[in-house]
Amino acid sequence: MPEFLYGHWAVIEAMRSGRRKLESLMIYEKSEKKGSVAEAVTMAEELGVPIQRVQRRILDDLAKKGNHQGVVLRVGPFPYCDIEDILATAAERNEKPFILMLDLLKDPQNVGSLIRVSDAVGIHGIIIQERRSVAVTPSVVNASSGAVEHINVAQVTNLVNAMKELKENDVWLVGLDVGPNIPPLDKTDLNMAIAVVMGSEGEGLRRLVRDTCDLLLTLPMRGKVGSLNVATAGAIALYSAWSARDWNGWVHAPKNK
Amino acid sequence: MPEFLYGHWAVIEAMRSGRRKLESLMIYEKSEKKGSVAEAVTMAEELGVPIQRVQRRILDDLAKKGNHQGVVLRVGPFPYCDIEDILATAAERNEKPFILMLDLLKDPQNVGSLIRVSDAVGIHGIIIQERRSVAVTPSVVNASSGAVEHINVAQVTNLVNAMKELKENDVWLVGLDVGPNIPPLDKTDLNMAIAVVMGSEGEGLRRLVRDTCDLLLTLPMRGKVGSLNVATAGAIALYSAWSARDWNGWVHAPKNK
Repeated sequence: MPEFLYGHWAVIEAMRSGRRKLESLMIYEKSEKKGSVAEAVTMAEELGVPIQRVQRRILDDLAKKGNHQGVVLRVGPFPYCDIEDILATAAERNEKPFILMLDLLKDPQNVGSLIRVSDAVGIHGIIIQERRSVAVTPSVVNASSGAVEHINVAQVTNLVNAMKELKENDVWLVGLDVGPNIPPLDKTDLNMAIAVVMGSEGEGLRRLVRDTCDLLLTLPMRGKVGSLNVATAGAIALYSAWSARDWNGWVHAPKNK
Repeated sequence: MPEFLYGHWAVIEAMRSGRRKLESLMIYEKSEKKGSVAEAVTMAEELGVPIQRVQRRILDDLAKKGNHQGVVLRVGPFPYCDIEDILATAAERNEKPFILMLDLLKDPQNVGSLIRVSDAVGIHGIIIQERRSVAVTPSVVNASSGAVEHINVAQVTNLVNAMKELKENDVWLVGLDVGPNIPPLDKTDLNMAIAVVMGSEGEGLRRLVRDTCDLLLTLPMRGKVGSLNVATAGAIALYSAWSARDWNGWVHAPKNK
């Protein structure tokens, strides 16, 4: 089944990564060849991807009302990987595994945003459950600004089984939770092989998922509203873990700390 | 001019904070008195706020197509404060000033999200420029989950002048920027009187704003996409600064670190 990616960065990054079959680029018939449309067209020409000029309503339909910015790319399905591929990526980079697991997240915007941050901190892969969770849909690709086209995503039948498989590979399962008596995330050394486990919007971690974690950490909070969006909380947790790894892999890192 | 706040948390937090004139609560005529609508109705009854049942299209119009969840609150204007009020809040809490400055941000979603995080970390106030920037509109209130109803926001004529005023009050201006040779944000002691300055979406900090900062910090980044949304970057920076202050004000903080 072909999929229709939409929006400038989703389209550009899918072509740049080259992991999917690229079938055709559709652009708004009245687009002038400049700006973001021009970049997509140039790239498609170089890659030999057929280009079609179409009516706006066709783009609107294919993007399911998403903000397509005049470009839609018809592609093959997302190339999910296995847990082994994620561990292999860590080994290839000679780094301790750094993984993100999402427990039944529902909002493509949150999932896309977490994937974008995962790319920024050098996560080796993301694990999501096949059922009752968002998959890598075109809206997730868009919300990730195309970052997901470069990152390992494993879709598993059962998240708890995947957690056990990681444990057997000496990966620590770190759940982000709320509640009293849970230590803040900067008081634990996260510079080890870890998978950060995030619960769903509203519901948090499922009980069995929480019980399978090796340790729980919390994001401190004060103020009147006292809650954060899961994408915000996850971004802070991932950066905290990457900071514990001394920004390993950051090319601009000053040599003298 | 009355304003129309919409959405469960915006409406609840505006009533809870009591800083605005509360004129009337409008609920969807067919709402049953349960869940989030019931909470708003109970609160309005206790506060003596008149309640009207209205047609859905009226709510849609008043919320300008925003997700109103069946509740709209007619209120007086947002009570902006002055820079002195922000410094007074810090003094009252006996804390070193912790301020957020936004340089011409345009997206209500980003501004709302940054305000929600500001509340969570105990920011003493937020400073925005009056012109060419988002104000505290109902969509910002909604995106902040109502958090802005509890927080100091100063709207200034000129952001650079406001920065100078803070300097005279011994506040350090810390700009978040991108570029080589800028140190990462965890290598500077942020446990001092600071204002974190965030640049706008796409444009970043204006030159004069950047030049007025006492120091610049950057958020390390690796990966293929190599950029983060301003709301995500700001959330990470604010948490990093709060962590440097040892989660000062967090009631659940374990005593032994």
